Amino acid sequence: MKYILMILTSLACTITAAWAGTDDAPTVLSNADAIKMVQTHANYVWTLVAAVLVFFMQAGFAMVEAGFTRAKNAINIMMKNLMDFSMGSLFYWAIGFGLMFGVSKTGFFGTTGFFLSDFEVGGDPWVLAFWMFQVVFAATAATIVSGAMAERTKFTGYLVYSAVLSALIYPIFGSWAWGSLFNGSGWLEGLGFIDFAGSTVVHSVGGWAALAGAIVLGPRLGKFTKDGGIKPILGHNIPLAALGVFILWVGWFGFNPGSTTTADTSIAMIFVNTNMAAATGCVMAMIVSWIKFGKPEVGMSLNGALAGLVGITAGCANVTPGSAIIIGAVAGILVVFSVMFFDKIRVDDPVGAVSVHGVCGAWGTLAAGIFNIGGTSIKIISVQCIGMASCFAWTFCTAFILFKVIDSTMGLRVSPEEEIEGLDSTEHGGNAYPDFSANH
Amino acid sequence: MKYILMILTSLACTITAAWAGTDDAPTVLSNADAIKMVQTHANYVWTLVAAVLVFFMQAGFAMVEAGFTRAKNAINIMMKNLMDFSMGSLFYWAIGFGLMFGVSKTGFFGTTGFFLSDFEVGGDPWVLAFWMFQVVFAATAATIVSGAMAERTKFTGYLVYSAVLSALIYPIFGSWAWGSLFNGSGWLEGLGFIDFAGSTVVHSVGGWAALAGAIVLGPRLGKFTKDGGIKPILGHNIPLAALGVFILWVGWFGFNPGSTTTADTSIAMIFVNTNMAAATGCVMAMIVSWIKFGKPEVGMSLNGALAGLVGITAGCANVTPGSAIIIGAVAGILVVFSVMFFDKIRVDDPVGAVSVHGVCGAWGTLAAGIFNIGGTSIKIISVQCIGMASCFAWTFCTAFILFKVIDSTMGLRVSPEEEIEGLDSTEHGGNAYPDFSANH
Amino acid sequence: MKYILMILTSLACTITAAWAGTDDAPTVLSNADAIKMVQTHANYVWTLVAAVLVFFMQAGFAMVEAGFTRAKNAINIMMKNLMDFSMGSLFYWAIGFGLMFGVSKTGFFGTTGFFLSDFEVGGDPWVLAFWMFQVVFAATAATIVSGAMAERTKFTGYLVYSAVLSALIYPIFGSWAWGSLFNGSGWLEGLGFIDFAGSTVVHSVGGWAALAGAIVLGPRLGKFTKDGGIKPILGHNIPLAALGVFILWVGWFGFNPGSTTTADTSIAMIFVNTNMAAATGCVMAMIVSWIKFGKPEVGMSLNGALAGLVGITAGCANVTPGSAIIIGAVAGILVVFSVMFFDKIRVDDPVGAVSVHGVCGAWGTLAAGIFNIGGTSIKIISVQCIGMASCFAWTFCTAFILFKVIDSTMGLRVSPEEEIEGLDSTEHGGNAYPDFSANH
Repeated sequence: MKYILMILTSLACTITAAWAGTDDAPTVLSNADAIKMVQTHANYVWTLVAAVLVFFMQAGFAMVEAGFTRAKNAINIMMKNLMDFSMGSLFYWAIGFGLMFGVSKTGFFGTTGFFLSDFEVGGDPWVLAFWMFQVVFAATAATIVSGAMAERTKFTGYLVYSAVLSALIYPIFGSWAWGSLFNGSGWLEGLGFIDFAGSTVVHSVGGWAALAGAIVLGPRLGKFTKDGGIKPILGHNIPLAALGVFILWVGWFGFNPGSTTTADTSIAMIFVNTNMAAATGCVMAMIVSWIKFGKPEVGMSLNGALAGLVGITAGCANVTPGSAIIIGAVAGILVVFSVMFFDKIRVDDPVGAVSVHGVCGAWGTLAAGIFNIGGTSIKIISVQCIGMASCFAWTFCTAFILFKVIDSTMGLRVSPEEEIEGLDSTEHGGNAYPDFSANH
Repeated sequence: MKYILMILTSLACTITAAWAGTDDAPTVLSNADAIKMVQTHANYVWTLVAAVLVFFMQAGFAMVEAGFTRAKNAINIMMKNLMDFSMGSLFYWAIGFGLMFGVSKTGFFGTTGFFLSDFEVGGDPWVLAFWMFQVVFAATAATIVSGAMAERTKFTGYLVYSAVLSALIYPIFGSWAWGSLFNGSGWLEGLGFIDFAGSTVVHSVGGWAALAGAIVLGPRLGKFTKDGGIKPILGHNIPLAALGVFILWVGWFGFNPGSTTTADTSIAMIFVNTNMAAATGCVMAMIVSWIKFGKPEVGMSLNGALAGLVGITAGCANVTPGSAIIIGAVAGILVVFSVMFFDKIRVDDPVGAVSVHGVCGAWGTLAAGIFNIGGTSIKIISVQCIGMASCFAWTFCTAFILFKVIDSTMGLRVSPEEEIEGLDSTEHGGNAYPDFSANH
Repeated sequence: MKYILMILTSLACTITAAWAGTDDAPTVLSNADAIKMVQTHANYVWTLVAAVLVFFMQAGFAMVEAGFTRAKNAINIMMKNLMDFSMGSLFYWAIGFGLMFGVSKTGFFGTTGFFLSDFEVGGDPWVLAFWMFQVVFAATAATIVSGAMAERTKFTGYLVYSAVLSALIYPIFGSWAWGSLFNGSGWLEGLGFIDFAGSTVVHSVGGWAALAGAIVLGPRLGKFTKDGGIKPILGHNIPLAALGVFILWVGWFGFNPGSTTTADTSIAMIFVNTNMAAATGCVMAMIVSWIKFGKPEVGMSLNGALAGLVGITAGCANVTPGSAIIIGAVAGILVVFSVMFFDKIRVDDPVGAVSVHGVCGAWGTLAAGIFNIGGTSIKIISVQCIGMASCFAWTFCTAFILFKVIDSTMGLRVSPEEEIEGLDSTEHGGNAYPDFSANH
């Protein structure tokens, strides 16, 4: 009997050891925990690298806006883009993030997590990684507005509205559609609204606020003649604008697949969908501009790529690459006609921001319902339409009121003399290209 | 006996549990599967982040080409770079990828996977990740050609040849060397051809097609005088060109190490080799230009960095950092003499694309055999030479025929009047810098 | 008894198998090893992707320096930035890395690992990944100096001092503070000096060397008038400078969190701290410039963002986001007054490199002690001050001697005629913008 007991004891020990989880002896359970931890590390790396790509979009927007406008306002555009991100980071940290992702009793806004108070030292740092990814989204919404209001807006007015947009308008709508991503919950997502990376939440919010701003401001001097003519005001540096679009395309590879905030295999299809929609948007906008204007037009082609990117943003995770091609193609056609439409109704949008982000964001949201991999239905489409409509209603109205208030108090638009001289010298006391004489 | 049996039973149960793999109880086997899954996630993240870096090279090529040419053609260059990627994405999706990586009976081209048909919803998304990484490579080959044909090519002609290059010429050669990467197989790799990231597959293909194009087009007006003189045509924006080279250097850190398509420790040496070759290429080209022209010349230095990068691309994974330094140095010297040679034989290549990508691509392919970590041999060198020769034969001939056909049908070159006025206004009805008066 | 023994045997076998680790049967131990391996792969990917972001900063520095200086020196600036990285890579490979991270008996410099000799084929490639991350840091230090010495330095003199900086001055100080990161050990870190990502090691070293250079060179012609007046010399391309700052901001997301060289959850707070400090630095510098000069000034705002980034670099991993906001705000205020101070004492620093990197680097090092999460103390503050003082003493003195030696032998400064004509034509025989007539 002795030797049997000896064997048994040794076996028992072995097994006990295997389940103990001491430093020197890994166990099935300690391995399982370690695997979860490594996956978590991969999630952090992916989400934060994606955040870097989205941050880089700030540079892209700055280059596109500067390239599509005149040399005399280039410094002002750099200052606006610097400030909407810098101030936006502060306001989104203090107020916006809590409204968007804080615990929400009503489903209309969150009420916790202001000043990143959800995070205590030694606590789970995921809130910080998630905040980092979200702040670059908030800044994108603010930056979009800047383009439509370029070349005539008072810098002080700009600072106020970009702060309000990052602190209130964007986060409150965001909480309706994405609140539950972190720990809140929103009424719109409760209905099953599909907007994976923000065609509506980010781009339409930016686009409709831009529309309100362009209307309240009125057109730039000389854009529309009394006899109903439209005088194109040419951008001063097309290679800079093209560089901006390439940078934005790069950034969208963080914007869309990064919205998984998880390192898994689902990002592959999102990458392909994002790329195909941008490519077809660019090609179709070129073709339409060729037909309409007789030449393949660079401004339209560049905006076509952005239109395709905005269009696929809502559905990037739940449509096939084949559908992405269709979505991008429609966006590329749509953007050309939309730009012509807003010119026709005499809304002056120097960079086409309303068409690219507002209109194509709406199209992308609808398309996410139509081409949904899981199949579509009247219900799905209706919910998408409710989302699009509530976005327009909320954003356009609040932004319109905001701009009207700014206009009637501190003033939103510079004087005609300042506009003619250029904002660089009047608002910032500078000259973007002092070694070259620009012909104004 | 009873207590012995009891213990035995309990032991048996424990062990059975440990191998069962239920949700609540991890097992050795379920852990092993989970580990594989996390590694797979890391592979996706690495391959797709690398794809983003390679995509960014499109911006780099656009800036280099625009910076090295005249202001009056800057819009045309932006349009070409936008379109070769956008249309290239579509043609590579429809045709190219299947020819390059589809199942191949002959070893000369694949015959499956067109329109990404290998991928069905719910299937393995790796084909999408792999496609995303490959499409940015295909676009690089097309973009290279653009530089050598700058400032005189009809936009319509450009669209046709860049489509054919992405759909047929590049993928068919690619299948010879890389077909088995996915699920095909090629005759050249069957011989043991070494071209890890594409000195031949991507860069020489681009370079030799560029040579054919430059020959069929002929030189720009005023480049070569009747009395055999060579008149330099200066680039209009050197900081833009330098920015482009920095961006390309960044992109190469995706191009070379990303070609592992696996997140493992082998990427470290590839990073170091890539960087050292670029650095020595840049330094040597500067020194040679200093000796030859009396001043350290910026154009040559910039091309020297690219020459080093192209040179190390084939061998980046199987040479030591010390060898990478030699490979880069030789490429940096070679590119200067090559540029002078093509000027001498009156082939007008505005950006030096043939020398950087064609000649240094060939050198890199040879060097990968000479400096191979595993040792070299007459057989290895011969196979490398067969690869270089077959690349030149296939690419130059097919591209030459293609350009001749385009030339004799729709026309490849613009009229002298259009060339003098500049392609921006004649082909695109635009002006890249309307606020500044350029002196043509 | 028989059946008992049979069961025992089978159990024994099962367990033996479970601990064997054959290919076909994973075990607890083989799983534990596999998990470690996947984490290692994640560390390589994160560290090397971060290195790419830091490399990209070279482009950012080039754009900022070119944008803030005159068109006639743009080529020279591109050449300097290309060369300090290219030559720096070679010198850091040959000498610098060994001095900084080689085994150190004295605590004052390492004596092994020159020419990457620590690495043999088949050995641990981590030394290569670590070298890649460190070489981009070394190049940053060299590049900083370039800005303060812009528009008047001989190219040959520049090549010599940037080589000495990368090979000796930077690595030797680095070994004092970071030597143990790899396998060395330094006297300063032995005291408990806190400089996580290099406010002192990288930025102050660059800044104090820049100060020595600016003093030895003297101001640009026309910067200071005889009657004590200060004539601003305007930068020639503000959008380019702004692009550079956005690129630097992007790069800092590799510079700070990448300094973990580990893929773990700690990077999240480092990202947030880095971003908040940059944002508040930018906002505060704008506000101070507004108060001081009457207008929100773009140059100061851009430098304010960089000041915030430099300021948070030392403490990014051991202060809270709230502290990061304060650190960035102080840096943003400090940089404006510092720039004015150096103008007052007639030290001509065209881009403000001494203020941004030297002064704010010192502030950030002090702040890392003051706001240290683990609490602060007289001892901690004293050690931080010892680090700051030893950095100034070592760097300023060695750099001053170096510049004096260069000046009295080969010459450090170009002739007044060359300075007036511009370095592009006199040093490089080129013209950065031949299609546009610059007004010098």
